[in-house]
Amino acid sequence: MRLRHVKDADVVINNCSFVIKDYKSNIGNWYKVFGNHHPIHIEIGMGKGDFIIGMALKYPNINFIGIEKFDSVMVRAIQKIDIPIPNLRYIRMDAKEIEEVFAKEIDTIYLNFSDPWPKRRHAFRRLTSVDFLKRYDGLFKDKCHIVQKTDNKDLFAFSIKSFNNYGYIIDDLTLDLQQNNYPDNVETEYEKRFKNKGNPIYMIKVCK
Amino acid sequence: MRLRHVKDADVVINNCSFVIKDYKSNIGNWYKVFGNHHPIHIEIGMGKGDFIIGMALKYPNINFIGIEKFDSVMVRAIQKIDIPIPNLRYIRMDAKEIEEVFAKEIDTIYLNFSDPWPKRRHAFRRLTSVDFLKRYDGLFKDKCHIVQKTDNKDLFAFSIKSFNNYGYIIDDLTLDLQQNNYPDNVETEYEKRFKNKGNPIYMIKVCK
Repeated sequence: MRLRHVKDADVVINNCSFVIKDYKSNIGNWYKVFGNHHPIHIEIGMGKGDFIIGMALKYPNINFIGIEKFDSVMVRAIQKIDIPIPNLRYIRMDAKEIEEVFAKEIDTIYLNFSDPWPKRRHAFRRLTSVDFLKRYDGLFKDKCHIVQKTDNKDLFAFSIKSFNNYGYIIDDLTLDLQQNNYPDNVETEYEKRFKNKGNPIYMIKVCK
Repeated sequence: MRLRHVKDADVVINNCSFVIKDYKSNIGNWYKVFGNHHPIHIEIGMGKGDFIIGMALKYPNINFIGIEKFDSVMVRAIQKIDIPIPNLRYIRMDAKEIEEVFAKEIDTIYLNFSDPWPKRRHAFRRLTSVDFLKRYDGLFKDKCHIVQKTDNKDLFAFSIKSFNNYGYIIDDLTLDLQQNNYPDNVETEYEKRFKNKGNPIYMIKVCK
């Protein structure tokens, strides 16, 4: 994600009703934020929000939380929403903190077009590294579900190995999301832009 | 593999000293055929033999057996060898019979550019289907090792799922064998022909 400085991004974020500021205080009690016990799905690295907004509108009986590290990106995801969506919240935070934010309450984690961190010495920063898979363990309510999309070959190969070695079972996997038949796919802004360039988009769904 | 009729293929095969005809009689005793206890690696669907011949020459302390169903293909693999290679044998057979041929004596199975059997109702015929993975279980001496290469996206996705769901651990996986650094890769005739056309070649190594 190329970052552009957005003026007053912090002001927009602080004034936004659906950005949860004191997010660590909700640990174990996120159902109260939504006022119901619907399943909670989170996207780590939501970017400009197209995916999580699309999902929230498509599945009103699931609660969605979009997580984004960068102010200047999150502000774009805020600006896409005119009227707050009841089953959607945002958090501006670093994924490394995630264990302090959720506990035994998540149903599914989405990882879309995450930073591939191509250098081997940075592998631990990839959101599907064993370091992160360990962090995720305590977040899930029952079964652990993770869905990843990427167009990065090396990140995808790394993720498959990492999920497999960590004991995840692969529910679904495609090396060409566009070509194979996935009518329920909700696109990210990145997907919308790049899907016609001929590079395949890879997708994997795992559980344990 | 496009099949062309080769005249007198059966005569060539029957007269070839390194094609084992009475192959079921060696079950459990293939070490005797080679006269040593070196590890035995087999390739199911060796095609015209470039891979298995290359491997046998490269690794003289491993015994290799190339298996091929079609006479007209096997005859090409025979014609590539002027002087028999001590650690290489061929068998002309259908992979479905494999449990009657080997028992607790194989170290590694190679599956290179296998028939993708694209129709769902033919999935059980794919060499990485659970039907075949079950057949392979009894062949291995200790750990089960399988290495697959293919340029078929859907077969590769199917194989990854199948290996993972069957309890295999992924040791290595690449979505671009040419681009990633694999100096020890021995090419099949198919790879040699198609590698410059820009289609990636996928590779997975699994064990359990």
